[in-house]
Amino acid sequence: MTRQTIYPGTFDPVTYGHLDIIERASNLYDKVFIGVAHSVEKKPLFSIKERVEMLKKATAHLDNVEVEGFKGLVIEYAKKKKTRVIIRGLRMISDFEYEFQMALTNRKLDDKIETIFMMTNESFSYLSSKLIKETVSLGADVRSLVPPFVADKLKKKLSK
Amino acid sequence: MTRQTIYPGTFDPVTYGHLDIIERASNLYDKVFIGVAHSVEKKPLFSIKERVEMLKKATAHLDNVEVEGFKGLVIEYAKKKKTRVIIRGLRMISDFEYEFQMALTNRKLDDKIETIFMMTNESFSYLSSKLIKETVSLGADVRSLVPPFVADKLKKKLSK
Amino acid sequence: MTRQTIYPGTFDPVTYGHLDIIERASNLYDKVFIGVAHSVEKKPLFSIKERVEMLKKATAHLDNVEVEGFKGLVIEYAKKKKTRVIIRGLRMISDFEYEFQMALTNRKLDDKIETIFMMTNESFSYLSSKLIKETVSLGADVRSLVPPFVADKLKKKLSK
Amino acid sequence: MTRQTIYPGTFDPVTYGHLDIIERASNLYDKVFIGVAHSVEKKPLFSIKERVEMLKKATAHLDNVEVEGFKGLVIEYAKKKKTRVIIRGLRMISDFEYEFQMALTNRKLDDKIETIFMMTNESFSYLSSKLIKETVSLGADVRSLVPPFVADKLKKKLSK
Amino acid sequence: MTRQTIYPGTFDPVTYGHLDIIERASNLYDKVFIGVAHSVEKKPLFSIKERVEMLKKATAHLDNVEVEGFKGLVIEYAKKKKTRVIIRGLRMISDFEYEFQMALTNRKLDDKIETIFMMTNESFSYLSSKLIKETVSLGADVRSLVPPFVADKLKKKLSK
Amino acid sequence: MTRQTIYPGTFDPVTYGHLDIIERASNLYDKVFIGVAHSVEKKPLFSIKERVEMLKKATAHLDNVEVEGFKGLVIEYAKKKKTRVIIRGLRMISDFEYEFQMALTNRKLDDKIETIFMMTNESFSYLSSKLIKETVSLGADVRSLVPPFVADKLKKKLSK
Repeated sequence: MTRQTIYPGTFDPVTYGHLDIIERASNLYDKVFIGVAHSVEKKPLFSIKERVEMLKKATAHLDNVEVEGFKGLVIEYAKKKKTRVIIRGLRMISDFEYEFQMALTNRKLDDKIETIFMMTNESFSYLSSKLIKETVSLGADVRSLVPPFVADKLKKKLSK
Repeated sequence: MTRQTIYPGTFDPVTYGHLDIIERASNLYDKVFIGVAHSVEKKPLFSIKERVEMLKKATAHLDNVEVEGFKGLVIEYAKKKKTRVIIRGLRMISDFEYEFQMALTNRKLDDKIETIFMMTNESFSYLSSKLIKETVSLGADVRSLVPPFVADKLKKKLSK
Repeated sequence: MTRQTIYPGTFDPVTYGHLDIIERASNLYDKVFIGVAHSVEKKPLFSIKERVEMLKKATAHLDNVEVEGFKGLVIEYAKKKKTRVIIRGLRMISDFEYEFQMALTNRKLDDKIETIFMMTNESFSYLSSKLIKETVSLGADVRSLVPPFVADKLKKKLSK
Repeated sequence: MTRQTIYPGTFDPVTYGHLDIIERASNLYDKVFIGVAHSVEKKPLFSIKERVEMLKKATAHLDNVEVEGFKGLVIEYAKKKKTRVIIRGLRMISDFEYEFQMALTNRKLDDKIETIFMMTNESFSYLSSKLIKETVSLGADVRSLVPPFVADKLKKKLSK
Repeated sequence: MTRQTIYPGTFDPVTYGHLDIIERASNLYDKVFIGVAHSVEKKPLFSIKERVEMLKKATAHLDNVEVEGFKGLVIEYAKKKKTRVIIRGLRMISDFEYEFQMALTNRKLDDKIETIFMMTNESFSYLSSKLIKETVSLGADVRSLVPPFVADKLKKKLSK
Repeated sequence: MTRQTIYPGTFDPVTYGHLDIIERASNLYDKVFIGVAHSVEKKPLFSIKERVEMLKKATAHLDNVEVEGFKGLVIEYAKKKKTRVIIRGLRMISDFEYEFQMALTNRKLDDKIETIFMMTNESFSYLSSKLIKETVSLGADVRSLVPPFVADKLKKKLSK
């Protein structure tokens, strides 16, 4: 039945929390497509090309994971990838309510597609791309929160 | 005593969740004034005129409901309409804390006016005007979430 | 239309938080019936007779408030008192979810009766009958949290 | 890879919320084992035999669902059923924190087994076996909240 | 050991809630440094100079409190002031999750510095600088929520 | 000023989460008194003597930490130990509301004593004495969640 899944997000940039979910998903499904949303309205710090590249590099060791950009609705992307399952990570209660709204709205748009939630490892449960960007812009070194090459890219972007 | 009430909001645009609260309120009070806040600082998608018109059309079947725009503080609007009761809908916990802050701040400004909360029907509890707008801008048809004529207006505004 | 309301609860014992809600409700409705639930399964500290008496004494200054015990479902009690409105106080998020479940379950049983929520004054928002009882049993004087005559009764019950 | 899953719980008794999760899970996995926990310490109203029977009857239309009792740790039950996936339903925030603790504790005991969460349909998100039992014991008819034959059994157990 | 502490924030503007925490902290430590963050990215209404001055005036009666602006990371500011303790106020659950993320991120950057939380007095627990600014811009008088001279400054800034 | 503090609790039994808070507190204060509450009403699994002994063994490496049992109100215990500061750990939102109620109730009883909150290390934030006991009673080995000698004691108590 459901042999492949998608894990959509903005990934601006990828954190160890995202990578934890990706590894868990890759253990449960034959194939995991990581869908990097264009999310123009969120004004991401990194371009779609940069975000896809960072994820590709960070997941290079996982054979059944594929990274790509996508535009439009998540449920359309799910249909295109022939999956009935959307993976999302849950860290905190503030995630919970937003994800709840999203999952139920998506179900209303297409009730054949399910959103499935996985818990981030507790060591990464407090990681937030937004907070990481704020911290770097104030001068922090975040090599313990994101892969080192991502930390370098963040520093370059934000230290000007 | 309290025979009339106000139900203030931005309504950008009205959803089936708002309409559920309006019908419930119209069953409990002799008269319900729906106050559409100008909310310039929120940069609404629809003009105040458009938002008032959509609500008028969507509540045309309710005899004791009147729709109008208002500027300034909600408590001043309440006094102008000679009511001591402000109605607000509660859907989720994230609503709760914001509404709690608002209600207590309003009470500090005028302790003779009460905010009263009603629970949205569970079928609409996940609806959010913000999420609906995001979804439409990505191409979704939201006729199950808002009245059809509102869905059409949203599509026209956001599909450009 | 809705000229009277009920405010049901266990009131074991009444606190300044309950009294705050009762005064607010008595300002909004012609008549407020305080329904003291038998709640045998909760093993209340005070008998139904004691709880009704304490509430009567504490609300003696409010002309349009009447206190009485009731058994069975809250919606049946509402129908008996010919009201469509049940009043409940909201203090904290933990209240919120329980009240949400109760209100939606009640609506399923009879959708003509509405639960309406009022915010407790912030000075009493942390009061809990359960915590007050725990505190008294450890030796505290709680005259700032409940009416003095209730504090005395608590002391007598719990200091043995 | 993961072709079968378990959905553990106490199911005292099964509600339409549980059945919603079971149907969703049966669409995503080749086989779903419903593990009814003995849960002696929770003092269930229905015996393990009664709970298993009610679930069997309520899921008779689902070919790939099997119901059985289990004792001991959920992760041991998962291993016995040769699955790496435990399904749990999420309804509310109060669920969330308990489920979060459970999932992370289970991960500590065996990190090869994942807990996966699905959102209950919003129409059933407020259902709680505990509240249903309380309501029935006060005289309510709960045929809209649980399958009719379960409502009858509840009435028989609780109306004495 | 820890004889001095810092209390960092944006204070745009200072409220009675902040002042409550400052007084509590000044009772527990020999010296409290109030660090006013430049927070350029938050586009504060008041300049750093104005915010520092308002705090100086509002804390003039506290001998062991010193107010100053700071740039960069809070943990660097803590090190500069030779303290291991950062004070933060907690009001509501929405604070809690953000503060949790911040505290754990800071701990990752330097695990010798602790964040310590104090509860705001319940009378001020609903105060939010953001909501106060919104309210004033709609015409409210907020002398019960912030010191009178701050209310005047807010009015001047926002009534144009 | 405040050179010593108390850290009260039931500790039934001590977990790595408690020990994390104790080490953090011992870094910030000259002296930390761990007050083990008798908590007869909670029907603890371990006797007060056993709980004190386990904590003494688990904190033997911390020179400025002293463990002892106490009866009655926490604020009376604080006064007896001549401290104005009570330390409590915060892990999750469900903690938050209970702790909020406790701290504000204590402040009402004696406003010269402050409760101060520290965040548990994220690796232990999901630990709960209650859940650990449940898990052990179902057969789990919890040596990664509590000190090994505590795991052994739990096993002995619960495996009968």
